[in-house]
Amino acid sequence: MQQPPHAENADVRMRGFARRTPVAVAEAWVDRACRPLPPEMTPLAECAGRVLAGDVTSEVDVPGFVRGMMDGYAVRAADILGASLYNRIPLRVIGASLPGRPFDGSVAAGQAVQIMTGAPLPAGADAVLPAECVETSGDGVSAQADVAPGAHAGRIGDDIARGTQVLAAGRVLRPQDVGVLSSIGVAEVAVVRRPCVAIVSTGNELLPAGSRPVGVCIADSNSPMLAAFVARDGGLAEPTGVVPDAPEAILDAMRRAADVVLVSGGSSVGREDFAPTLLTQHGTLAIHGIAMRPAGPTGMGTLDGRLVFLLPGNPVACLAAYDFFAGRAIRLLGSRPARWPYRSVRLPLARRITSAIGRLEYVRVRCVDGQIEPISVGGSSILSSTSRADGFVVVAPDSEGHPAGEEVEVTLYD
Amino acid sequence: MQQPPHAENADVRMRGFARRTPVAVAEAWVDRACRPLPPEMTPLAECAGRVLAGDVTSEVDVPGFVRGMMDGYAVRAADILGASLYNRIPLRVIGASLPGRPFDGSVAAGQAVQIMTGAPLPAGADAVLPAECVETSGDGVSAQADVAPGAHAGRIGDDIARGTQVLAAGRVLRPQDVGVLSSIGVAEVAVVRRPCVAIVSTGNELLPAGSRPVGVCIADSNSPMLAAFVARDGGLAEPTGVVPDAPEAILDAMRRAADVVLVSGGSSVGREDFAPTLLTQHGTLAIHGIAMRPAGPTGMGTLDGRLVFLLPGNPVACLAAYDFFAGRAIRLLGSRPARWPYRSVRLPLARRITSAIGRLEYVRVRCVDGQIEPISVGGSSILSSTSRADGFVVVAPDSEGHPAGEEVEVTLYD
Repeated sequence: MQQPPHAENADVRMRGFARRTPVAVAEAWVDRACRPLPPEMTPLAECAGRVLAGDVTSEVDVPGFVRGMMDGYAVRAADILGASLYNRIPLRVIGASLPGRPFDGSVAAGQAVQIMTGAPLPAGADAVLPAECVETSGDGVSAQADVAPGAHAGRIGDDIARGTQVLAAGRVLRPQDVGVLSSIGVAEVAVVRRPCVAIVSTGNELLPAGSRPVGVCIADSNSPMLAAFVARDGGLAEPTGVVPDAPEAILDAMRRAADVVLVSGGSSVGREDFAPTLLTQHGTLAIHGIAMRPAGPTGMGTLDGRLVFLLPGNPVACLAAYDFFAGRAIRLLGSRPARWPYRSVRLPLARRITSAIGRLEYVRVRCVDGQIEPISVGGSSILSSTSRADGFVVVAPDSEGHPAGEEVEVTLYD
Repeated sequence: MQQPPHAENADVRMRGFARRTPVAVAEAWVDRACRPLPPEMTPLAECAGRVLAGDVTSEVDVPGFVRGMMDGYAVRAADILGASLYNRIPLRVIGASLPGRPFDGSVAAGQAVQIMTGAPLPAGADAVLPAECVETSGDGVSAQADVAPGAHAGRIGDDIARGTQVLAAGRVLRPQDVGVLSSIGVAEVAVVRRPCVAIVSTGNELLPAGSRPVGVCIADSNSPMLAAFVARDGGLAEPTGVVPDAPEAILDAMRRAADVVLVSGGSSVGREDFAPTLLTQHGTLAIHGIAMRPAGPTGMGTLDGRLVFLLPGNPVACLAAYDFFAGRAIRLLGSRPARWPYRSVRLPLARRITSAIGRLEYVRVRCVDGQIEPISVGGSSILSSTSRADGFVVVAPDSEGHPAGEEVEVTLYD
């Protein structure tokens, strides 16, 4: 079969669009529509990777007591002033201080208390004489060096002083941040609520995800893909399953309790594309038709306070529409950076990429021997191309493409 | 208080170590000890981010039927050969083919069937004439262009042909991979089992994680921190809670059902450091004492088939010991790359870093105005320093450090 001239079908489906909204304008609509969700108190053990809703200030000193920072002997520094190998000063050991088991008494002149790292410094003592500066003899020891007052003694609040801001709002909590929160006695943390995202796949031809395709039916690949993307972007995915191409069923699914509704399929202007009309009738269809390929037949709007994204049914277009618009919304609602959570690198092109002026082009590529190879598949229906691809190159709307050899930015899928 | 000369206490606690194992030797021990865990069948919806245990080959063609790739009319290409704006060829429209609702008949000479993108091409037809190449009139249409046989018709297996390997063993599944697996009818996937990791914090001074510190007690910060790291590295964390400094209690905790046991605290050679002795008595203490700072007092070995890591109780040392050794083991058991899941960049040093020859130094740093600033805190007890830090610089064992202005690699915590 010879390759037909218009293998990518998005354009043709778009011919019905009166105008196409530039990608940047659609992104700006998303940015205006999305404010971070309110906080929710969450147990410490579930907070890693969540976004802190407010500044956290410590109400306690860590540590809350003077502690030994080395193994050795708690002493009064003045008692051993001038001690050296040639001027050993004897001390009487009156007990020991261990972590959690402090010495229950006071160190007087000429006395010492054995102390372990992390243990409380006993009353009366003002320094730790390290174990290697000591010679033991019977029930006593001899200091072979002196120490300054405060030596090897960790002060109260050394790690975190009461009243210190330890973490700022907007922080994506790292493992060690969770440790820090634990150390100041925080058992529950106010983190930004995760957006609930209902996922609706429409199409009479669709079988539930993971079904073996039979006859003229295909398995729903968009729902499980979108659910994984939503989780990546910090949302709570709630797949609805497959919905037939029937206006009532689609409207019901759009009205599920959610912060964001993703409807894949039926997003264009054909006679079976019900979702845009439903959104116009029952809510607001703010944008419909985007100047990009694939994913031109993408819509977005609102319905009773929900954000609704109408994503093309063709899976590559669905992926691109998610990544440009819906994922951005989910990240912003969760108070995360709007930008893609992808790495990018700059590499030269092995072959040229062409694109039409006026629309953004999303080109799947492989990185081979330090060069970028565009993947030569026409259709936005070829989902497997996004598994074979290492990432994608975005050709700007004002560009006709890039010649072979030019270094361009490739965004890596992982 | 003047800063004492040995503020970092790891060295002093290590003075009891007869020898210190180089970091590279300990890493090699981990690499030898860890083989990927066996696969487990997992529902598709839970597979994103998991590691594929075996190659996946498609047992079906996707699509399993010839489909229209554009909206238009299914035709016999030979019927309209030579059609143009000046040679319109009439066709009689005998029905429509929609996705999931194919035309139940055959296209004969002079006939056409309206077809939507993704719908099955009816029997008899061999091409799709795009809608914009057609003029409608009554119950018929006129072709205003011709098309080659096969035009705009997606062949069987265009996306994935039966027998094709779609994904290879070891792949960390991306969202789109999950979509691909769904499209070939895979409802459950054989992925590498995640290592179960028991987390044990020892210390009489410890209160449960998130407890407000009281008197001479501190809250366990290592357990929640380690649990978050384990999750990051693809393990299933099972915190055991706080265990007192008592041999029987520590041994019981070490014997929990798990692939890996992390014991924090009591990992050195002091009289209250029970874990190394227990591991020697009941299992194997393969390595004890590492030539690094912090985290010198780290041990590792095996107990009844479990891998056991003895991590220092001081939280910064605990973090470093986890990241160098335990995290590596958990990643390898899960069939993930051994390397850190961190990004790194090269930046010049704002101030010099010094280090002793013979040991690796883990230096927490901030990135300020495009330069690396070492964080000037002595103790490995100051966990908050790892929240303030943007990352760390590793000074190699054969280096005395780096002068100000030298460009070095900084590994970023996020």
